[in-house]
Amino acid sequence: MTDIDQSTLDKFKGVSTPTLATALYKRGLRNQAIQGVLPLGNLKQSMVGRAFTLRYIPAREDLNPLSVFLDPQHPQRAAVEACPPGSVLVMDSRGDARAASAGGILVRRLMMRGVAGIVTDGGFRDSAEISGMEIPAFHQRPSAPTNLTLHQAIDMNVPIGCGGAPVFPGDVIVGDTDGVIVVPAEIAAEVADEAVAMTLYEDFVVDMVGQGQSIIGLYPLTNPDNEKKYQEWRLEQPPQ
Amino acid sequence: MTDIDQSTLDKFKGVSTPTLATALYKRGLRNQAIQGVLPLGNLKQSMVGRAFTLRYIPAREDLNPLSVFLDPQHPQRAAVEACPPGSVLVMDSRGDARAASAGGILVRRLMMRGVAGIVTDGGFRDSAEISGMEIPAFHQRPSAPTNLTLHQAIDMNVPIGCGGAPVFPGDVIVGDTDGVIVVPAEIAAEVADEAVAMTLYEDFVVDMVGQGQSIIGLYPLTNPDNEKKYQEWRLEQPPQ
Amino acid sequence: MTDIDQSTLDKFKGVSTPTLATALYKRGLRNQAIQGVLPLGNLKQSMVGRAFTLRYIPAREDLNPLSVFLDPQHPQRAAVEACPPGSVLVMDSRGDARAASAGGILVRRLMMRGVAGIVTDGGFRDSAEISGMEIPAFHQRPSAPTNLTLHQAIDMNVPIGCGGAPVFPGDVIVGDTDGVIVVPAEIAAEVADEAVAMTLYEDFVVDMVGQGQSIIGLYPLTNPDNEKKYQEWRLEQPPQ
Amino acid sequence: MTDIDQSTLDKFKGVSTPTLATALYKRGLRNQAIQGVLPLGNLKQSMVGRAFTLRYIPAREDLNPLSVFLDPQHPQRAAVEACPPGSVLVMDSRGDARAASAGGILVRRLMMRGVAGIVTDGGFRDSAEISGMEIPAFHQRPSAPTNLTLHQAIDMNVPIGCGGAPVFPGDVIVGDTDGVIVVPAEIAAEVADEAVAMTLYEDFVVDMVGQGQSIIGLYPLTNPDNEKKYQEWRLEQPPQ
Amino acid sequence: MTDIDQSTLDKFKGVSTPTLATALYKRGLRNQAIQGVLPLGNLKQSMVGRAFTLRYIPAREDLNPLSVFLDPQHPQRAAVEACPPGSVLVMDSRGDARAASAGGILVRRLMMRGVAGIVTDGGFRDSAEISGMEIPAFHQRPSAPTNLTLHQAIDMNVPIGCGGAPVFPGDVIVGDTDGVIVVPAEIAAEVADEAVAMTLYEDFVVDMVGQGQSIIGLYPLTNPDNEKKYQEWRLEQPPQ
Amino acid sequence: MTDIDQSTLDKFKGVSTPTLATALYKRGLRNQAIQGVLPLGNLKQSMVGRAFTLRYIPAREDLNPLSVFLDPQHPQRAAVEACPPGSVLVMDSRGDARAASAGGILVRRLMMRGVAGIVTDGGFRDSAEISGMEIPAFHQRPSAPTNLTLHQAIDMNVPIGCGGAPVFPGDVIVGDTDGVIVVPAEIAAEVADEAVAMTLYEDFVVDMVGQGQSIIGLYPLTNPDNEKKYQEWRLEQPPQ
Repeated sequence: MTDIDQSTLDKFKGVSTPTLATALYKRGLRNQAIQGVLPLGNLKQSMVGRAFTLRYIPAREDLNPLSVFLDPQHPQRAAVEACPPGSVLVMDSRGDARAASAGGILVRRLMMRGVAGIVTDGGFRDSAEISGMEIPAFHQRPSAPTNLTLHQAIDMNVPIGCGGAPVFPGDVIVGDTDGVIVVPAEIAAEVADEAVAMTLYEDFVVDMVGQGQSIIGLYPLTNPDNEKKYQEWRLEQPPQ
Repeated sequence: MTDIDQSTLDKFKGVSTPTLATALYKRGLRNQAIQGVLPLGNLKQSMVGRAFTLRYIPAREDLNPLSVFLDPQHPQRAAVEACPPGSVLVMDSRGDARAASAGGILVRRLMMRGVAGIVTDGGFRDSAEISGMEIPAFHQRPSAPTNLTLHQAIDMNVPIGCGGAPVFPGDVIVGDTDGVIVVPAEIAAEVADEAVAMTLYEDFVVDMVGQGQSIIGLYPLTNPDNEKKYQEWRLEQPPQ
Repeated sequence: MTDIDQSTLDKFKGVSTPTLATALYKRGLRNQAIQGVLPLGNLKQSMVGRAFTLRYIPAREDLNPLSVFLDPQHPQRAAVEACPPGSVLVMDSRGDARAASAGGILVRRLMMRGVAGIVTDGGFRDSAEISGMEIPAFHQRPSAPTNLTLHQAIDMNVPIGCGGAPVFPGDVIVGDTDGVIVVPAEIAAEVADEAVAMTLYEDFVVDMVGQGQSIIGLYPLTNPDNEKKYQEWRLEQPPQ
Repeated sequence: MTDIDQSTLDKFKGVSTPTLATALYKRGLRNQAIQGVLPLGNLKQSMVGRAFTLRYIPAREDLNPLSVFLDPQHPQRAAVEACPPGSVLVMDSRGDARAASAGGILVRRLMMRGVAGIVTDGGFRDSAEISGMEIPAFHQRPSAPTNLTLHQAIDMNVPIGCGGAPVFPGDVIVGDTDGVIVVPAEIAAEVADEAVAMTLYEDFVVDMVGQGQSIIGLYPLTNPDNEKKYQEWRLEQPPQ
Repeated sequence: MTDIDQSTLDKFKGVSTPTLATALYKRGLRNQAIQGVLPLGNLKQSMVGRAFTLRYIPAREDLNPLSVFLDPQHPQRAAVEACPPGSVLVMDSRGDARAASAGGILVRRLMMRGVAGIVTDGGFRDSAEISGMEIPAFHQRPSAPTNLTLHQAIDMNVPIGCGGAPVFPGDVIVGDTDGVIVVPAEIAAEVADEAVAMTLYEDFVVDMVGQGQSIIGLYPLTNPDNEKKYQEWRLEQPPQ
Repeated sequence: MTDIDQSTLDKFKGVSTPTLATALYKRGLRNQAIQGVLPLGNLKQSMVGRAFTLRYIPAREDLNPLSVFLDPQHPQRAAVEACPPGSVLVMDSRGDARAASAGGILVRRLMMRGVAGIVTDGGFRDSAEISGMEIPAFHQRPSAPTNLTLHQAIDMNVPIGCGGAPVFPGDVIVGDTDGVIVVPAEIAAEVADEAVAMTLYEDFVVDMVGQGQSIIGLYPLTNPDNEKKYQEWRLEQPPQ
């Protein structure tokens, strides 16, 4: 698994998912957004962490009585205990929110273990409780039924699809109010750097537009006057 | 219609829809969640009541001029006056939210009449107004057009489908932030009792997990030490 | 383009989209709701303005590198600068929210230019930022990817479909918490007048229902006693 | 139930569902097509008959063991024996083809009883067998699972929705290779007459277009020369 | 992997997918139909074989240039060479038919290798060519784009979902004109036996219904007279 | 509009849509398939022609009485008379097949005028009649209602979306049993040449695979022995 510095991960905390999507788009990657998921509750800051995955398949009734959870090796429970602190648990629920992918107790356990976040392309139960926890969680919509109703956890930390996006173990997962973006581990460092630079320029553009300037020649930068203004503006910014 | 004690109905107020879904799952009932509906506004407490139903079919234009409401027997208006206090009005809108199932005035009338809640698998109009009322309302999404545009009220208090779930008149309808669950009247008492017991144990688990304990052996309970801890914990709980 | 007085536009600010939908329904127009869109953030007041449109088609990769924005005539950017103050920019994104229709910078520019609102049947990026702006914005859901990923802006101010509704340039666009309604320009004046009158009567009905009166004979008005009560109630209302 | 002459029903055998849809459109009825259904196998002639309905709701597992069919009053089996010869059995399966609405044995029994056809907005099992029978059958797609899996037959000969269209018992149901149209019983006679006349003119148009004539002035008829040609053409037609 | 006799597999060739679905339903298995797939071309006989699986995830552009096929270990190509003769290759394409799961050349290679059939919940390209081959193939619809456009083959012979059904390597896959059913390997023998018996009785019912008998008391068998008739009928059947 | 030789157009007649999709994929174009459309009836040969477009928006009731067709300039009828012989009429129906995009009479007129084909991402009425005509037609499914029910023809020969693909006037449209591919006019010549070469090699592969050869090293060609075999095979082919 590609090594990624903590300083790189920290950079992702200061950039938005739209900026990341554009940086990936420049590299020919058009399909790295986990479609249709949003955070539960109010995010205090972006979710950032490397992907640890859990794969569900459709549940077969005879293999999914409640008693399966008596087995400490059950993949869902095992994943909750195995997902490394600082990682994001990403679940392939085949986009099916008719039964929950997880509930309040498992998410609380992940939080206590220092996991950085949790994502499903299905739904969570106990959504109000999860909304109040200190761990970012992203899903499609709340869903009361137990996962056993429709989802059978089958293996962990394999490549999966989630919300139509490919997710490989170790990819950088970033989530904010616009959803979740998957940054391939191999290009995480360069994407982080570029996104930081883009963010700075976008902040300048927001300032200028807020002062009444037209976007033409400014966004994107084509008028050299704006280049000059930007360099001056940067000097005025407080150090970060 | 199966008789259900008020004390049973009261028990449902203290348990969540996920807990109920699991209790039903144990009994082989996997399809009792009304899919895709959420409460308007902030629920102060769970919605609990017995189902009174209204069935819509697709509207035929010649049968649905606005003047149909001049008839005091029009099924939609009749249902609003007939739904017993304490019941929940559940509407089969065929999952179609392109026109409203009801609006603020009808919901207000239901509230004044002491109805316990209202559910549609379509949408409500005047959603901001309804959000502020003292009656729980669950729908798919807001929808401005009058019901006559697409929905013709055809009969009341017959078995219906709502959000993919079967709803029989008299079933217990419970709604919270995770959606709505339909408990068959025949098993309401036993499900209520079991859900109360499950809720108590889950509260214990939340406490233990919040203290850093692993879920293995705890949820579900397979380690006898946890059984002992649970019994001690119970003694410490304030009487409800 | 049909002329519409400012006084007519002002009337639309005091009526709800459900009331407008019913007024249009009386005229045989059943399909004027832009389906599936809701406001970002809390609306301070209704969005009202005449439609200025932007049409997207599916993006062809070779025609949509990021460099297209270097062209000041790019239809998306041109539309943002051309949409007249007081108008509503309505975008046909083919109901596809997998890529954004616009983001925070463009919406801020529209706000600065005095545009009255923005609507897409897709999604916006930078949704949290837009939620806090003083310009109403309606979409399906947040979406991080740049519009170039899936949407190619192709022309402006032509008739379009948006959320399944026909939108002609100059139509009156009204948005509130129940979504967005399109009022054909040709009948805007009469619809505004009727909606104002309907709203007054509905306010009376809300009062009466809040006092415990049945809807039968009241909504709609069929009992002459209620006509009399209404006339008295009107006299008691403060002048608007 | 409105009386309809056999001669009227016979007229429907000679007209197509598109022609009927247009005749209904002229009367303000835009939603009388059962959407998404097609005939199994090759139709020898149009399906024509009056609607007899069967309504399904979602199946509750405890009420739908295979043993329910031991009850001769089970609504699905009862409907198959009760549907009058010459009628069309129309089933509301909520557009859900994941389980069958009926299979080969029941359809064969309907055929033997002289029923004129069968329609579901779900699917049939034993579709190859049904394709070869002398009874028209329309569905969405083949589906192997027994109806009990998802569909509980609940009552018969009530108004239903089927494929998004309203169907009242006694309505005239017409099916051909373009799908199924529902003609309200009250206007069946006049619609039949108009459709016969339209069909004759369309036959003329097909002839003219086949000879190379433009559709302008011909379809619809606005050029008086074409009126004259049509009258001459009619005289040349063999008596029907 | 559970052993299954050839004689058991042979029994599956004589029974239909609806009969199998009912036999599984009796055992509490309601979700073993691969939804939404149909055979290409005319099936000469049922498809029967044990499942060998291939799992796709969404394609990441940088990992899916055409040159990946230069690698003889590419999972899609490897699966085509590894799937055992007599097995059925079942592909999890996440229900996405916007790009092909495979094309004519690969299907031809499977046929040459003696593979018993191929199933995807997506689509095939070269569908006309495949329709004419001596290997049963089931899909959702034809699809021209190469699999690399949207599908990345990731691993083989792991448990998958296909058309909403769970498929474990070694399960018995049976396909006919009503679609595809997955029989868990563990119960294949008993299900085969029961289905054979059910088929015989259904053949008797078809005969009786074709002679005009009512289904009441016959299907299911509740009238003892029919039991007697059935035993006589069996004696008259030619040995199979 | 880019000029395209007849010889280039002729080349497209000998290649399949999957081959074209792969040739476009090599050039970074992943989205040129009109999704979800298939030919009516049996195609005698591929449909090839340059795109002439018609754009529909959702129908507004007051603008779409049947009498609109009295106007010879109505865009639908005008398009049918204006589409050049040899072109393909491609209609943007917003993927909505609930009402027809056109019917038998208009398609017959197109055929008589020498138009090369017709495509809609909605549906046709009179589908059986169209199936028998000597003009290829592609749609989603048959649909009986008149286009006026839901579709208002608004302009012609502008860039449109069809089945999720971008279509510019003059693009080369190729259709066969796998659906329809849009080849941008600017690269039509080079794509045609490449597809012809690919087709020849694929024919060789089909031959080899039919003789029992593995695909490894053959498809794609990585084993030099196969290159030699291919060159020999080519010499044996009859001249085309």
